[in-house]
Amino acid sequence: MSKGQLFIVSGPSGSGKDTILKEVLARCPRLEFSISTITRAMRKGEVEGEKYHFITKDKFLRLLEQGEFLEYNEYMGNFYGTPKTPVKKCLESGNDMILEVDVNGAEKVRSQLPDVVSIFIMPPSLEVLKKRLSGRGTETQEAILGRLKTAISEIKRASEFDYIVVNDNLECAVDNLISIIKSERSKRERMYYIIDEVLKDVGSFNW
Amino acid sequence: MSKGQLFIVSGPSGSGKDTILKEVLARCPRLEFSISTITRAMRKGEVEGEKYHFITKDKFLRLLEQGEFLEYNEYMGNFYGTPKTPVKKCLESGNDMILEVDVNGAEKVRSQLPDVVSIFIMPPSLEVLKKRLSGRGTETQEAILGRLKTAISEIKRASEFDYIVVNDNLECAVDNLISIIKSERSKRERMYYIIDEVLKDVGSFNW
Repeated sequence: MSKGQLFIVSGPSGSGKDTILKEVLARCPRLEFSISTITRAMRKGEVEGEKYHFITKDKFLRLLEQGEFLEYNEYMGNFYGTPKTPVKKCLESGNDMILEVDVNGAEKVRSQLPDVVSIFIMPPSLEVLKKRLSGRGTETQEAILGRLKTAISEIKRASEFDYIVVNDNLECAVDNLISIIKSERSKRERMYYIIDEVLKDVGSFNW
Repeated sequence: MSKGQLFIVSGPSGSGKDTILKEVLARCPRLEFSISTITRAMRKGEVEGEKYHFITKDKFLRLLEQGEFLEYNEYMGNFYGTPKTPVKKCLESGNDMILEVDVNGAEKVRSQLPDVVSIFIMPPSLEVLKKRLSGRGTETQEAILGRLKTAISEIKRASEFDYIVVNDNLECAVDNLISIIKSERSKRERMYYIIDEVLKDVGSFNW
């Protein structure tokens, strides 16, 4: 068995990456989700350890000093980080892991772990993205426009990613992401062991 | 739309590559099979233009002189070649193409077209391979052992391929090969166009 593969998934708000990832994780065996460590208050419906680990700022800063984060950022006075230990453990067990980070986080992870495979989830058009963001009904027109502008600057950086998956149709996007994960598992680098395994009996083979 | 991708599939006799390819081609849209040009006599059940184009040796040698073959070989006095023109046409149309060649043919194609993606179909064990070859019931014990020896020398070269797909279970092997083809279609190099397409409306976008 070879080591697991780390995948990064990024995409603008409204690209549907959360929904896609939920489906992919439900369908794909031997694939784990990296739970982020964050310091903001828990929101309604959120569960500790599901998508986030909630800790205090003091504890976050202590872990940061110990070099425990693969990447982190500060947003509106709170910290968001990807802890190293679970990633290491998962990959060593032979399972694959998915990290959901923004384009800056992706850049940081790539610079530390060049073997990472990164995937950008692309909305089919700005028009569709705007509709999806408006459809949530939870944000002002101004906030939506702000998100759209951020999305545009992220889309411009999609070429930094190894793969681009267009989320026009959810089922297709899920299928494409699963294909990427599966195909990485068939890569030569991960399958070397099978050559030795198949040939191990050559000497004692019943000719 | 970007250009199509060329795939090479190799694997020892008894690896099940013919059955896998038939299934993959039936299920995968925008994927064509490269029909080999050969000079041996047509066998019972074979149809011109299905898996092979049957031509005379004279014609083959003329085409060879014209540089029409991406790779070819001579076996028991007959010629077997992969014609260039259909590959070129297919890839330019945006469709992908699969070539089935042996490990030497794969090496020749790779040296001419470094962007080719190559896949080795691996039997799960020598024991299973022997059973599959014996199960055909059409060959002598000696011929089977000859095929096994060739298989071993081919398996030793599996590491020259980009991907290795183990054919333990036909359904899984087919699914893995389709995943490789799909994932190649999501590669950055083939998806650059979508960045421009999504961003083309930024200027005239209804903010």
